[in-house]
Amino acid sequence: MFEVIGERINTSRKKVQEAVAARDAQYIIDDVSQQQASGACFIDVNAGARIGHEKEDMQWLLETIQSVAIVPLTLDSPDPAVLEMAFAMVKETPMINSISLEKERFDAMIPFLSGKECKVIALCMDDTGMPASSEDIIGRADTLVKELNAIGIATSNIYVDPLVQPISTDTTKGVMVLEAVKGIKTKYPEVHITGGLSNISYGLPQRKIINRTFIALMMTAGMDSAIIDPLDTKIMATITTADMLLGNDSFCGNFLKGVRAGAIES
Amino acid sequence: MFEVIGERINTSRKKVQEAVAARDAQYIIDDVSQQQASGACFIDVNAGARIGHEKEDMQWLLETIQSVAIVPLTLDSPDPAVLEMAFAMVKETPMINSISLEKERFDAMIPFLSGKECKVIALCMDDTGMPASSEDIIGRADTLVKELNAIGIATSNIYVDPLVQPISTDTTKGVMVLEAVKGIKTKYPEVHITGGLSNISYGLPQRKIINRTFIALMMTAGMDSAIIDPLDTKIMATITTADMLLGNDSFCGNFLKGVRAGAIES
Repeated sequence: MFEVIGERINTSRKKVQEAVAARDAQYIIDDVSQQQASGACFIDVNAGARIGHEKEDMQWLLETIQSVAIVPLTLDSPDPAVLEMAFAMVKETPMINSISLEKERFDAMIPFLSGKECKVIALCMDDTGMPASSEDIIGRADTLVKELNAIGIATSNIYVDPLVQPISTDTTKGVMVLEAVKGIKTKYPEVHITGGLSNISYGLPQRKIINRTFIALMMTAGMDSAIIDPLDTKIMATITTADMLLGNDSFCGNFLKGVRAGAIES
Repeated sequence: MFEVIGERINTSRKKVQEAVAARDAQYIIDDVSQQQASGACFIDVNAGARIGHEKEDMQWLLETIQSVAIVPLTLDSPDPAVLEMAFAMVKETPMINSISLEKERFDAMIPFLSGKECKVIALCMDDTGMPASSEDIIGRADTLVKELNAIGIATSNIYVDPLVQPISTDTTKGVMVLEAVKGIKTKYPEVHITGGLSNISYGLPQRKIINRTFIALMMTAGMDSAIIDPLDTKIMATITTADMLLGNDSFCGNFLKGVRAGAIES
């Protein structure tokens, strides 16, 4: 089944930042409840936007969210100290967002992740920048899987983000990432593929239809998770429908449930 | 570029049958004009529904349609005599709809198609019924391509219809046809894949979102044509968007044209 990582609890979003600054717990609780009711399988928590306040904001957010969360959390920070504190606070095994091949982040994250039992998002980014070809993405994913396996993270706990790039400046970027996903899944059937999708439509109009059509294409290639806004009903309807079409919804149960709830419309 | 075969001129549609019976040329001309304006690359013409009138209805339809058609026609009949008459009437090289492996249709169509220069839709149907697995579909497509090649039809003029089957009774039917399309395109990169799609959603509610999500999945697998209603703006928007995402729309030109025309909305 496709796993949606709900992206809304992020202090770079104006309303979330205001709620965090004011310690408005009800706002956060309502948002998390809505994300869960809409089908989020993980709640991403990012407290990075208020400079100098990340650790205390993350602590308050986790206390607040855990009063209502029924799904595991995605701890989203580049700072191992913040992650260590957060890891000790969560009740359920979390997902860590993220490691990459950028030397500074890699060197900080490997000691933190060593010996821990958790899921981890692995970005195909290195110090040279974004990947330039399908083979480049596959090679970076391969390195990340091997490095994470070496410190005890099982392949089935790795969520590779192949880094979606805009087609507005280069129309081959869609095929590039689709081919990369197929290649990674061929080499590592147990690995998960996740990431944000909205970069694909950067610079183009009517971005939402591009984003939700692209997720259907990516799911056909093997993507089985995404970092999105679960309150976007149209993208969620596309995911539920595509997941059914790909044989992952026995007796079409999730689809029919969505139709009855009014969440899926022609 | 994806090729849409417009399915509307079919006497099994009530309004078309009425227009044909009344020899209402304006109705037919308007319909064909709308299909072309909406992006149809072929206009399918089927005059089979008024029993005993197919030949004269087809003749009148072709005369009428050719006064306005700027795209080639798809001659849709199981009767070689009707097809011979129609083939002689059309100004542009047509597409023939269709041959299959059912003995009666196969034996009737092979002499008709021999030595002709035309495109042809090849249905993966035989006298045992619908295909039962991906391998079965690929095997039938392989036989059809070889038989058509043997009578002089180039592979690039063959449009294989893998026969989409409903997922409501068996949720594996979507993956079955997707894998078959990949297999056929791997074996014959020049062959086209076409067909109707609406069978996929038979027996389920909210069928249109299922059909248009499925076409995005099928396009990722290699489908490059479909027999649909070009006036269904949502499925056409999905096709234009997916075609762009698959790298078939240089500078995103078709997509941007569609947005400017108001045909693509988020």
